[in-house]
Amino acid sequence: MQVEILTIGDEVLEGQTQNSNATFLGKVLSEKGYSIARHRVIPDDHAVIQEAFKESLSDFVLVTGGLGPTIDDLTKNAAVEFFRAPLELDQEIYAELKTRYPDSDDLKSQAMVPKGALALRNRVGTAPGLLFKKEKGSLFLLPGPPREMEPMFLEQVAPLLDSQFAPKNAPSMLRLSLCMLRELDVDPILREIKKEHPDVEIGIYPSYGTLQLRFKVTQLPERLDQWKERIRQAFPTHLFEGASIAEALHRLLIEKGKTLALAESCSGGAISQRLTAMPDASKYLLGSLVVYSNAWKRQFLGVQEKTLEKHGAVSRETALEMVQGLLTETEADYAIAVTGTAGPTGGTDEKPVGTVYIAVAEKGGATDAGKVSMRPNRSSIIEHTVQRSLGALYRKLAYNKDSFS
Amino acid sequence: MQVEILTIGDEVLEGQTQNSNATFLGKVLSEKGYSIARHRVIPDDHAVIQEAFKESLSDFVLVTGGLGPTIDDLTKNAAVEFFRAPLELDQEIYAELKTRYPDSDDLKSQAMVPKGALALRNRVGTAPGLLFKKEKGSLFLLPGPPREMEPMFLEQVAPLLDSQFAPKNAPSMLRLSLCMLRELDVDPILREIKKEHPDVEIGIYPSYGTLQLRFKVTQLPERLDQWKERIRQAFPTHLFEGASIAEALHRLLIEKGKTLALAESCSGGAISQRLTAMPDASKYLLGSLVVYSNAWKRQFLGVQEKTLEKHGAVSRETALEMVQGLLTETEADYAIAVTGTAGPTGGTDEKPVGTVYIAVAEKGGATDAGKVSMRPNRSSIIEHTVQRSLGALYRKLAYNKDSFS
Repeated sequence: MQVEILTIGDEVLEGQTQNSNATFLGKVLSEKGYSIARHRVIPDDHAVIQEAFKESLSDFVLVTGGLGPTIDDLTKNAAVEFFRAPLELDQEIYAELKTRYPDSDDLKSQAMVPKGALALRNRVGTAPGLLFKKEKGSLFLLPGPPREMEPMFLEQVAPLLDSQFAPKNAPSMLRLSLCMLRELDVDPILREIKKEHPDVEIGIYPSYGTLQLRFKVTQLPERLDQWKERIRQAFPTHLFEGASIAEALHRLLIEKGKTLALAESCSGGAISQRLTAMPDASKYLLGSLVVYSNAWKRQFLGVQEKTLEKHGAVSRETALEMVQGLLTETEADYAIAVTGTAGPTGGTDEKPVGTVYIAVAEKGGATDAGKVSMRPNRSSIIEHTVQRSLGALYRKLAYNKDSFS
Repeated sequence: MQVEILTIGDEVLEGQTQNSNATFLGKVLSEKGYSIARHRVIPDDHAVIQEAFKESLSDFVLVTGGLGPTIDDLTKNAAVEFFRAPLELDQEIYAELKTRYPDSDDLKSQAMVPKGALALRNRVGTAPGLLFKKEKGSLFLLPGPPREMEPMFLEQVAPLLDSQFAPKNAPSMLRLSLCMLRELDVDPILREIKKEHPDVEIGIYPSYGTLQLRFKVTQLPERLDQWKERIRQAFPTHLFEGASIAEALHRLLIEKGKTLALAESCSGGAISQRLTAMPDASKYLLGSLVVYSNAWKRQFLGVQEKTLEKHGAVSRETALEMVQGLLTETEADYAIAVTGTAGPTGGTDEKPVGTVYIAVAEKGGATDAGKVSMRPNRSSIIEHTVQRSLGALYRKLAYNKDSFS
């Protein structure tokens, strides 16, 4: 049983909005073992939507977008016409909407459901989801806003799918995550494995100094453990558990009961933002001093005027005083400080754009500090800074290993 | 001339990676007036890639992904077979790669180019882009990493397209951005316009308290100015210029030569991160005190122990002391402070998850402070907090208008 994800909306087609619904659905479904045949994105166009329904009918299709009450929402009407299913008022949905939105007078159109379709309750917004069953497979229409679509999918659609289409012969998968490594560092060992086991599907997904590896086999899954051990022996202090280095560090700090303080210059709050995106970050994160200006570096972290003058704000010396400032001014067990030039301006011959100094320190312990150089592009320099500083602290905590010194 | 964007890669299909290439290409191309027919995402599968090339050949197609040197990169070989174009060493590309990577011994395979294809220089990574011309349209193969693909597209592909396929009869577009409004606030006026002018295509793209409106017409473009004026009269203090409220505020602060300080609790650095993602944020942003813990709220902002005890960290009183702390402790002209519960835990009956207090203040001026309540979901609560606090400061600066008080 193959799955297709169909996104309807000019805003996605024209790059106004990331297609985060396809990302979400692709991730959840592939983790359950479903095979994703393709994603498609098509415009808010009645005829094109109908054509896409037609092309998709032999599949099991998840459609998102275009179900709302406003003028550019065409999906429901396209389905009405395509399935020749006239709209009928769904009394249950209507009653529920009136309870939740007593002051709204535009609820009736949202509660109109095509005849023969099953309405799925939307507990966040007003547009119900719709399920059309066909001889071959099913078509689910889901609302576009992720905060409406995601709970509807997880609570209503996924259980329906699993009860009817639970993947048979789902492949066995091994996912491994490594920090502070490049793609080319691990490629040789992966080529060896592929040569010995041509049936394995191997994926490498590099992302700013972290790597995700994925091994997929349909038989002899016990080999996955052997490969995991082989990677572990090759890179004993780079492996981490979880989907991101931020999540791995987050869990490790909670598990160890240690606290963290951050001082961010060029990353501008991005390290703190990444950690606080996760619930329970308050269990370890005291806070982050985003000292973008030199005045703030002096005022809040005690960086010396003469250090800034002699070595510059972008220097190992400034990074060291920043991290030391955190440890002396606050109660934190661990501290990370970063300072660099994210560009596009501000680089010099000696310190071009992309030069970042990272210092990672433990209260009463040693400091791991050094320079990293990234290729010029503001957003990727910031992202590298986030991942490498988190990776360095992770290796310190998990393996007592320095990354820079 | 219609454009199609084809993304190759299991990591996108299975939601490990956002399809940011399709977003980027969709945005740049639609702003140039090209019509985007669809996006597709397909797996790293030799046969499926060939099938997709076949289905796409009457279009002009941009393909991203699968050009790298590692084991899961299949696109070049699929093209070799599909176009029956044997690989030949491109001496110019090879020489350039050897100059840039003198220590690497794996460059030859990257410099192999299918016969008849035009190689596009990759100035960031090693995989050249490839252009295959067919009777009907062209197929561009571009590398997957955005930092390689984006400059290659902007510097080499876009000029080629524009010289050959510059859109004729490109529709005229009006994009308007409004902050601190909901979709339903503007829908009535859009329906009126659509009723009077059935030929206009209207899109509404709500995003956490900001709205993007798009009007598209193929004739009588002078109407766009009338509609802009009509929206302006209906919402005189909500309009802003630019793609995001962060960008609008960024430009306004630079234009006015004013400085800004932030104090962030529940947003965890996300407001600062959003502003510092843009070059020149250092022209106005002094920094952000991400005071995640109560100890830091007291230490760095002078929030009173008794305020925290009596009213709690999530309170109007705490937000007011935070913003006041910024204005007295630092030199900033403007200050924003936020404190709230992003959840999923930590809510109470009186202050459920999603309760956020925002205070926006001007040195020597009035403070605009109040409560906003969002639906529970950590990431959307944080995103609402970012956009609403930036929107409130924007309205204060641009229109001298309070949003909360």
